[in-house]
Parts: sequence; C-alpha cells; structure tokens
Amino acid sequence: MSNLPTPPKAFIFDVFGTVVDWRLSVARFASEVLVNKQIEIDGLVFADFWRGQYQPAMARIRSGNRGYVPLDELHFENLESTLEHFSLSSALSDAEKWHLNTAWERLDPWPDVVAGLAQLKKSAIIAPCSNGSIALMTRLARYGGLPWDCILGADIAQNYKPEHTVYLACCSALRLRPDQVAMVAAHNDDLEAAREAGLKTAFIPRPTEHGGSQEKDLEASHDWDWIIKDFAELSQMD
Amino acid sequence: MSNLPTPPKAFIFDVFGTVVDWRLSVARFASEVLVNKQIEIDGLVFADFWRGQYQPAMARIRSGNRGYVPLDELHFENLESTLEHFSLSSALSDAEKWHLNTAWERLDPWPDVVAGLAQLKKSAIIAPCSNGSIALMTRLARYGGLPWDCILGADIAQNYKPEHTVYLACCSALRLRPDQVAMVAAHNDDLEAAREAGLKTAFIPRPTEHGGSQEKDLEASHDWDWIIKDFAELSQMD
Repeated sequence: MSNLPTPPKAFIFDVFGTVVDWRLSVARFASEVLVNKQIEIDGLVFADFWRGQYQPAMARIRSGNRGYVPLDELHFENLESTLEHFSLSSALSDAEKWHLNTAWERLDPWPDVVAGLAQLKKSAIIAPCSNGSIALMTRLARYGGLPWDCILGADIAQNYKPEHTVYLACCSALRLRPDQVAMVAAHNDDLEAAREAGLKTAFIPRPTEHGGSQEKDLEASHDWDWIIKDFAELSQMD
Repeated sequence: MSNLPTPPKAFIFDVFGTVVDWRLSVARFASEVLVNKQIEIDGLVFADFWRGQYQPAMARIRSGNRGYVPLDELHFENLESTLEHFSLSSALSDAEKWHLNTAWERLDPWPDVVAGLAQLKKSAIIAPCSNGSIALMTRLARYGGLPWDCILGADIAQNYKPEHTVYLACCSALRLRPDQVAMVAAHNDDLEAAREAGLKTAFIPRPTEHGGSQEKDLEASHDWDWIIKDFAELSQMD
C-alpha cells in the first residue's frame, strides 16, 4: 500500500460484490422461495438473469429518461421480467413477488468484511456508497451485521453510480472534501468514476463474485491509491 | 403502555434533549475551549444563549425565506452571534470557532440510552429523526456509541421539524407506512407534528434537559401511544 500523508477520514463502499456475495445469496433464497411453490429452478441462472437487468434499468434513470426510482422498485420490475423469461409470470402473487424481492436484503457478507469493518470503524467513518436505497442498505446491514456509521449512496443523491453526483453527495453529507474520502470497490469502473470525482480509491478483488468463470475485475486496472487483499488491510493504512 | 396489535417496525428519535444531554455537554466543551483562551465564562449561560437561537434560525428555512442549510452551518452562525453577545467576536479565529462548533458532535447520551437502543435494535429499526445533519448525527453517534441502523432526519428531507415532510421522508426512506413507525421524543410539540403526519408516538420525559428550573415538557400533554420512563421500556412493547 502507498503511504499517504493522512489516512482518509471516511471510507465509503460499493456493496453488491464488494461487501456481500449477492450471487450465491440471491440464488439460495430464490431457490428456497420457488421450491416452496413446487418450482425447480437453477438458482444461479435465475440470480444471474435477474442481476443482468440491473445496469439497463439504472441506465434509463442516469440518462434522465426516467426520474429517480429506488433500487427496490427496479429490482421488483426486473424480477417481473425475470419471472416472465422463465415462464413463471403467473406462478407468484404480488405479495410473493415482493417477498422474493427481499432476497436483496439477505445477502451474506464476504468472510473478511464484518471484522474488517469493525476494526476500521475505530479510526474512520464507514458507510455504504451503493446504488441500493437507504431502506435496502439498512435491512442488509441488519441481516449481515454490517456496522455502518450511516447509510449513504443513491438515495441521498437521487441518482445512480457511476454518476459523479453520487460520490460527491456522500462526501458532502459527511462534510468532507472528496480527497478526505476513500471509495472501496471490487469494480474498476466504480473506482474510475470515484477518482474522476476527486475521491481516493481502494481496490479489492472479489474473483468469485460472478462464479468460477469470472473474467472481469480480477485485478486492478489502474494505479488505485490502495490495492488490498481483504478488508482487514483497510484499518492498517497509515 | 397501551397494547397495539403490532409493535412498530421502526423507531425514530428526536436527539437533542431526548437522546443526549446537549446542555451540560455544550457547557462543558465551551468552558474548556474558552478557558484555553484565558476566557472565563459560565458554560451553561453560554450554552443556553447559543441554543436559544436554534428555533429562530430554522424558522427562516421552514418558512421558505431561506433555502435548506444544514444545522452545522446554522450552529456556526449562531455561535458567531453568541460570541458577539458576550463581546468575544474577535477572541477566536475561524478555525477555533469551527472547533468550538464541534461541541454539538460531543454530546453525552442520557444514562438509559445506549443499552436501551442496543436492546431495541434487536427487534426494530432504530434511527435518529433529528434536525441535525447526517454529518453531525454520524459524528455524534460515534462519540456516544449510539448504535443507529441508519441516519435519517432533516438532511434527507431538506427541511426542519416540525414540518411534516421530515417525519414522512424518514418513513419513506425506510419504505414503511407512517403507522408502522414510532416517533420518540421528550418534546410534546415534536410528537404533535409526528402524530399529525400519521406516525405512532412515544413520549419520554427529560425533566433536566434545561436544568433544574425546567417548566416545559415535564409530562405528556396528550394521550401519546406510549408514555415511557426510560429507553429500556421501548424494547418491551408488545
């Protein structure tokens, strides 16, 4: 790790992929819910298809073609098209669909996360800078025991990453300059945008986020301020 | 306590006076800072004067005569008039004034608070619904060990209590209906507004918030949904 004159006063985190293993968690919950409806499905295929509509759904909002809608609702809309894709549109009631949608509130943290965040929190503010809503991130934190100091991200910016306004709104909410804040992510494009917005950047590889055949984000694409192997390293910056 | 069919899914809290003893804390910190400048002052008188400008400063924003400004900045402006009142305008540099302004980030919780919140958090979402900013509430939580799930309040509504929009923005951020959320406060007028907005209400007396001669809010003025004696009671609602 490089030696900066002063460590960041706050660390803000990408969540889906960086903090939690969304893929295995969504696959497991979807399988459980659907098995209860006598529907056998490959949970991983279902999870991948559902997540596959994440970026296009946000793109319409980033481009201004649609007003800001919290991710909970985009997830629900994307769930409806996922069910349609698997010819399951009429298999679930609306209440059952909303229950299945809570899959995104039940995502397991990667094994290094909770202890690493607890340690880091002793010396710096920690908060998610996710495209998930306050409601979603709050419930996810309660599920996984994530000891955030506060919840930042898309809701407070009313827009989606990688729009610069999201990173800047997080800094502003903390009354910190962008260069006092480090963005932590397993995705190089997230860090590119954060750096453009003036934040410090920390990359952590999560090589199994997309399963064994993952090709993207296996390593740092740029000279990020820190390249770490796990969250324990975050609290050792000085 | 009354018996409701279902306990609230979230409890949101007034902070200054309800969760923390702002008066003694600000008095102590102001005395320390000013003594270091060889200025002897009655910290309690200083704290009361500073806090006395709190409502008028927010009133201009509530009325629409001024755009939303986070409380940190109102506190700073009010500090400048407080220093002027005590003929101390030129005694502190701007950096020293901003340091003194962090008095509001160093407020001691009342003795029942931390344990009560930790217990309550096991069964419900807990968050501040304060006029303090995310930055202020985040630092205050770190100072006092307040285990909030997230930080709600004025910043996310871009307005100040008792405007209904602030209570409603907190519910909306959690994706809960107002009747699923309980507002907890030591101030009857705060609860009046929360009830008008559709929230459940819980009153806790803090009879020494303003010192030994306090006359207001010594008891509940209405039939609030719950009238409690300390935070431990909050987790016993069922």
